[in-house]
Amino acid sequence: MDFSPSPRAAELTDLVGRFVREEIEPVQADYRRDVEEARLSGTWAESPIMADLRAKARAQGLWNLFLPAGHDQPWAEQFGTHGGAGLTNSDYAPLAEQMGRATFLAPYVFNCNAPDTGNMEVLLKYGTPEQQQEWLVPLLDGRIRSGFAMTEPGVASSDATNMAATAVVDGDEVVINGRKWFTSGSGHPDCKILVFMGLSDPDADRHHRHTMVLVPVDTPGVRIERQLPTMHVYDEPVGHGEIAFTDVRVPTSNILLGEGRAFEIAQGRLGPGRVHHCMRLIGQAEVALELAIKRGLERTAFGRPLVKLGGNSERIADARIAIDQARLLVQNAAWKLDQGGALNALSEVSQIKVIVPNVAQQVIDMAMQMHGGGGMTDDFPLAAMWTNARALRLADGPDEVHRGLVARIEIGKHR
Amino acid sequence: MDFSPSPRAAELTDLVGRFVREEIEPVQADYRRDVEEARLSGTWAESPIMADLRAKARAQGLWNLFLPAGHDQPWAEQFGTHGGAGLTNSDYAPLAEQMGRATFLAPYVFNCNAPDTGNMEVLLKYGTPEQQQEWLVPLLDGRIRSGFAMTEPGVASSDATNMAATAVVDGDEVVINGRKWFTSGSGHPDCKILVFMGLSDPDADRHHRHTMVLVPVDTPGVRIERQLPTMHVYDEPVGHGEIAFTDVRVPTSNILLGEGRAFEIAQGRLGPGRVHHCMRLIGQAEVALELAIKRGLERTAFGRPLVKLGGNSERIADARIAIDQARLLVQNAAWKLDQGGALNALSEVSQIKVIVPNVAQQVIDMAMQMHGGGGMTDDFPLAAMWTNARALRLADGPDEVHRGLVARIEIGKHR
Amino acid sequence: MDFSPSPRAAELTDLVGRFVREEIEPVQADYRRDVEEARLSGTWAESPIMADLRAKARAQGLWNLFLPAGHDQPWAEQFGTHGGAGLTNSDYAPLAEQMGRATFLAPYVFNCNAPDTGNMEVLLKYGTPEQQQEWLVPLLDGRIRSGFAMTEPGVASSDATNMAATAVVDGDEVVINGRKWFTSGSGHPDCKILVFMGLSDPDADRHHRHTMVLVPVDTPGVRIERQLPTMHVYDEPVGHGEIAFTDVRVPTSNILLGEGRAFEIAQGRLGPGRVHHCMRLIGQAEVALELAIKRGLERTAFGRPLVKLGGNSERIADARIAIDQARLLVQNAAWKLDQGGALNALSEVSQIKVIVPNVAQQVIDMAMQMHGGGGMTDDFPLAAMWTNARALRLADGPDEVHRGLVARIEIGKHR
Amino acid sequence: MDFSPSPRAAELTDLVGRFVREEIEPVQADYRRDVEEARLSGTWAESPIMADLRAKARAQGLWNLFLPAGHDQPWAEQFGTHGGAGLTNSDYAPLAEQMGRATFLAPYVFNCNAPDTGNMEVLLKYGTPEQQQEWLVPLLDGRIRSGFAMTEPGVASSDATNMAATAVVDGDEVVINGRKWFTSGSGHPDCKILVFMGLSDPDADRHHRHTMVLVPVDTPGVRIERQLPTMHVYDEPVGHGEIAFTDVRVPTSNILLGEGRAFEIAQGRLGPGRVHHCMRLIGQAEVALELAIKRGLERTAFGRPLVKLGGNSERIADARIAIDQARLLVQNAAWKLDQGGALNALSEVSQIKVIVPNVAQQVIDMAMQMHGGGGMTDDFPLAAMWTNARALRLADGPDEVHRGLVARIEIGKHR
Repeated sequence: MDFSPSPRAAELTDLVGRFVREEIEPVQADYRRDVEEARLSGTWAESPIMADLRAKARAQGLWNLFLPAGHDQPWAEQFGTHGGAGLTNSDYAPLAEQMGRATFLAPYVFNCNAPDTGNMEVLLKYGTPEQQQEWLVPLLDGRIRSGFAMTEPGVASSDATNMAATAVVDGDEVVINGRKWFTSGSGHPDCKILVFMGLSDPDADRHHRHTMVLVPVDTPGVRIERQLPTMHVYDEPVGHGEIAFTDVRVPTSNILLGEGRAFEIAQGRLGPGRVHHCMRLIGQAEVALELAIKRGLERTAFGRPLVKLGGNSERIADARIAIDQARLLVQNAAWKLDQGGALNALSEVSQIKVIVPNVAQQVIDMAMQMHGGGGMTDDFPLAAMWTNARALRLADGPDEVHRGLVARIEIGKHR
Repeated sequence: MDFSPSPRAAELTDLVGRFVREEIEPVQADYRRDVEEARLSGTWAESPIMADLRAKARAQGLWNLFLPAGHDQPWAEQFGTHGGAGLTNSDYAPLAEQMGRATFLAPYVFNCNAPDTGNMEVLLKYGTPEQQQEWLVPLLDGRIRSGFAMTEPGVASSDATNMAATAVVDGDEVVINGRKWFTSGSGHPDCKILVFMGLSDPDADRHHRHTMVLVPVDTPGVRIERQLPTMHVYDEPVGHGEIAFTDVRVPTSNILLGEGRAFEIAQGRLGPGRVHHCMRLIGQAEVALELAIKRGLERTAFGRPLVKLGGNSERIADARIAIDQARLLVQNAAWKLDQGGALNALSEVSQIKVIVPNVAQQVIDMAMQMHGGGGMTDDFPLAAMWTNARALRLADGPDEVHRGLVARIEIGKHR
Repeated sequence: MDFSPSPRAAELTDLVGRFVREEIEPVQADYRRDVEEARLSGTWAESPIMADLRAKARAQGLWNLFLPAGHDQPWAEQFGTHGGAGLTNSDYAPLAEQMGRATFLAPYVFNCNAPDTGNMEVLLKYGTPEQQQEWLVPLLDGRIRSGFAMTEPGVASSDATNMAATAVVDGDEVVINGRKWFTSGSGHPDCKILVFMGLSDPDADRHHRHTMVLVPVDTPGVRIERQLPTMHVYDEPVGHGEIAFTDVRVPTSNILLGEGRAFEIAQGRLGPGRVHHCMRLIGQAEVALELAIKRGLERTAFGRPLVKLGGNSERIADARIAIDQARLLVQNAAWKLDQGGALNALSEVSQIKVIVPNVAQQVIDMAMQMHGGGGMTDDFPLAAMWTNARALRLADGPDEVHRGLVARIEIGKHR
Repeated sequence: MDFSPSPRAAELTDLVGRFVREEIEPVQADYRRDVEEARLSGTWAESPIMADLRAKARAQGLWNLFLPAGHDQPWAEQFGTHGGAGLTNSDYAPLAEQMGRATFLAPYVFNCNAPDTGNMEVLLKYGTPEQQQEWLVPLLDGRIRSGFAMTEPGVASSDATNMAATAVVDGDEVVINGRKWFTSGSGHPDCKILVFMGLSDPDADRHHRHTMVLVPVDTPGVRIERQLPTMHVYDEPVGHGEIAFTDVRVPTSNILLGEGRAFEIAQGRLGPGRVHHCMRLIGQAEVALELAIKRGLERTAFGRPLVKLGGNSERIADARIAIDQARLLVQNAAWKLDQGGALNALSEVSQIKVIVPNVAQQVIDMAMQMHGGGGMTDDFPLAAMWTNARALRLADGPDEVHRGLVARIEIGKHR
């Protein structure tokens, strides 16, 4: 066993960490103000800060770092050695933690943000050369962004087989109807393409009824009706959209992998994405713990600094233990993904999906409490951080579904 | 022992409950929309719905119900038998629960909202006839509203002796300087008077250093700088203000009870107010549990309604047990207050202040989880409810301080 | 609402509490030593201390206090006003708490111990005059003791319909076969009668398959094979027996209420018994909290008494809150039983059955931790107390079954 | 990062695991019966099964596996390549987990049991050649056993500086007085030597007041007064003794390292020992989870196997997640110890000391609950396993002390 990072991971972690501290953290508040103003004015425009940061990051080779090795397609060359970094999940994990320290900004700066990362991986693994040229190349180049239209307002989407929006082949076209929500990224002005998952054949077996289709946002019949708040946070300009699809028609060449093969894609897609989410949350939890301790040292009550009062020190210890355990579990899951792919790490990926958002939520809550009422205001980043962690107990499958999967695998060992 | 409510409490609970269901719940969404628009437009105007509802409630005698018996001042007559209802804390508790079912609207409709209730009680118990005539009568009449300026941004206000803003007697005036925040109610257009608590004599003993003063909002030197969000919620038009006081001068006749006697007032003030808060939270928790069960019955995953999946039914049971225990604890605290006043129920009041917001927060979180992503949006009331419960783990003293008090009393029994 | 006890309850609580402190607590250690020696020597004899204490208690009228009013049978007279006290559940509850302070001894002293109390109630409500004369009178008189043979080693007895031991009518006899365990009380030399619950008609509907039969311990074919330890505690001389029944024959006149009516009896039997158990556990939790605080005040580490270190004071506060909430929940359940019987309090009784043993276990665990290693030895009563609380998370139905019932009732309100 | 074990660790883990399954598990019940009988008869004799198993294990080279590399003393040769295995902590960890599956027997079989391992390490690192020849060689040879006399009944030993028993140099002798308890191992007939820690100079600074001395058990004045039960478990024949020392005199050559240097030794001693304890507990938790699932699959209630009822499957998932996280945390701590010694892993070692016993206790409790009442009897190993885990929340420092250390280090990063 060796818990030290590879030299390459160590070096990149250092570079990314420094970039986050030196370039991103100083402009976070300005960025926040820009995009909030744009939301309130209704434009949802991106802040110019983003383009500047992206250019700087890309110039330092900190671009598409999430992209695994193993593709020698002709288009890859234009991204140099960074199309992408060719890192393993294990090597990428600590980079994601560093990005997570500025989670509302950094992942976008490095072109490593969900759902684009997952969509890029899908295009890389399952896309035709034409699909790759049309959508993957501009995504890797940061020229466009994308959405993933899966969750529906009308059904319990925790059971993905419930999905009721339709994607029916009609000759050489696919006809799409229905309603999706929580299509993250769809609020961004650069969002040009949606990966849509819909019911194509209700009579097929449970896991072959659905199809994934590439749907350009400007296709007639696609209407983004609103951007949804979570705990009153809009995550502008990214947004989480509710989208109506009415008789939307795209060519069958926009189908990914093949009709009825959506679950096959979904299964492979989610492992790395969950590792990214979880490592970013670890970064968030670390920030929260630091803020809690600093505040607890600065402020005094009843004659002692807050960190020395009552159970505060035990809560700090519990936070440290919880974070370190959770990080190790994610790193182990990443390593298992590297060793044998998604099927090798089904339980592990669900385990981290359960525990990490809960740990992050709890540590952030503790930090809010240490800050008193101020901790709930926007004078501190904690309210937004909490909301993000809370939302991730639902996004990509609620805790309960992942616990169910872990239990099923565990029980299966003893049948 | 008798766990049944008195006939009068039962009758009023029924009336208030019906009013909430029939008059308030149907217009809640409209009210919400009005005040949100007013906030976004910068006016923070009150919705006309409020005046209508207040008139109806008052016409039915559902007005100032919180106000305890025992005052036969001449001005009381004009409020008829309802100046106020003369209920005990024990009898008022179930009414507060009913109001809590529509907690963002109902307490205001019945003129039973914090911080006005606490301020009215202070004026009733400690105000001079002049102070009562000038401020209490219009408050009881619903013509004006008030704020309570205690918490400060610069110190750990969980230790009230930390308060650094000053209220210094200078001849026949009090000179006020400093900064307060979380002055709830100060956003409302009708907010005319602030109860200000400040340091008047740093050399006095710990509990006689501070003084409470009545400060009209329009006194020169009072500047409401902003209204604070909690988890991005503003509770408009009520608001939670940050207020700068610069060389504010009011006559010494505005001092409450006497110089250096702020703690004496504060101690008596908080018991009933905490019972009100807690019973309203019980009402919120009941609403959340109902919503959770209804959603869990409507939605199906993996072939079964959500309530039957995994640990959901156990969580519902745990919520029921937690709510029922918490309600009984509050009712017992109210009864103890009735029996022997605030000093008789110090531990009990702190106990409910710890447990009830935590129970409510947990039940609402469970309900959000049962609703999936939608539960975090504004399509459901859960996000706002959660924020309210979370904020009450800090408002009126954080959990930790109240746990400390409960522990001290408990340990004191065995010294 | 009125949280004060009735004058009669207050007076008896005082008497019982004083008896426990003055008569029982001083001899607890001697009693413990006597019965442990008797267990190690294999006799399982009762200590002579018991008879002495019982005589004293009875002389003071502290006898059969658990027995509800409402029976004017001729035999009742001989027990004077104490056959029994005719208390409501609500009035008896605080007495049970006092007994619970010395839970391994006091309930027996006052002839208020499980399972005799439940068996006496069953005989009182459902017994024929002959059954009452033969078994109830000597039980009330304290001349004999009894067992309740329900749980089976071979099936998940949490689902009572699983019971597989048989009680089949054959002419004017009932033939009994099968194996029971955790028949508490069966280790005692005075245990003369068992209430046996067995399958009589597998083809009847789920709740009419089982029959309750009175089986004298000395009936041929009854063999008590061993007394079971729980966490290595035997609760001698009471014991928890494993009993084999082989072709045991008793007359059909020993059937309680009627063939196939066991569930009807069981349902009515358990409400008060669970209130008793829970109130005794509240008494145990109070003792544990007192021990924790006393130890925490006596012992010093790192220059401060233990109660002031880290989270200890918060744990003390949490214990106080948890105990007070749990007690109120039990008292409310008792009151509901009084108002409308077992069917009126189904959820309430299951709620207390879930929460109280968990609270007691947790508080006792905290107290053990405060005592350091010594807390786990027999130098302190905590190890035995913990075991008792833990066992009650399983006895009379495991937590999970009661949570299931509470959930079903809760969900049923919204169907 | 590499989460795979080294080839040597993998091979030895396999060998030890197989030995546990094939040689130890089949005789566990017999061993248990032997030593229990010996306890009840008062001899506390060792079972002959032990010598047989030890011989077999040693013949396979599975002996002293815990002993780290790095000592080339002449006496080492006689233990061949196994004096000891020269494994790193990281490599030894999975072996300890395997031993932990039969934790009451296996560690002794492989001569890898506490407190002998810790004592051997101390002698190895700090012993003089004479001390090593006299005590270390027979310990490594399995001819004798040892105790560690540190905890005292009279003081809060969680603060080691509280220790009041004295070890005072008087010429060329050390005079020892006082009382120790929880001296584990002192019940065994082969226990010949005690490592005693006592106060030698009350005027020295806090961490130089105490001295460690080797005290042969048969020294005049040493009296083992009793063996202590924990939750009524004696862990015979090992035992946890209470020992009175009255004017015990040993030569100063028995002092370890030097007068006043006990803390220096203690600090280095505990890291690996805690890793061993924790990994054994991981083994215990795995056994408990397996037992829970198997029972939950076998038993049926309300028409479904227990594992499918209510929250049982979620509890199984939570157990898997908790165990895997805890194991990784221990492995990481072991690796840190290997990288930089005890001072490099102070926080990590305290973290595992907090979390692992709690996880094990909780998983075992869940397994007991799944077994119903039977789970608390000796028909299953769960009661003994629970007791062991619970005791380890106190042994080697209570949770609270270790949380305090973790917090101090964490807070120290931000001062």
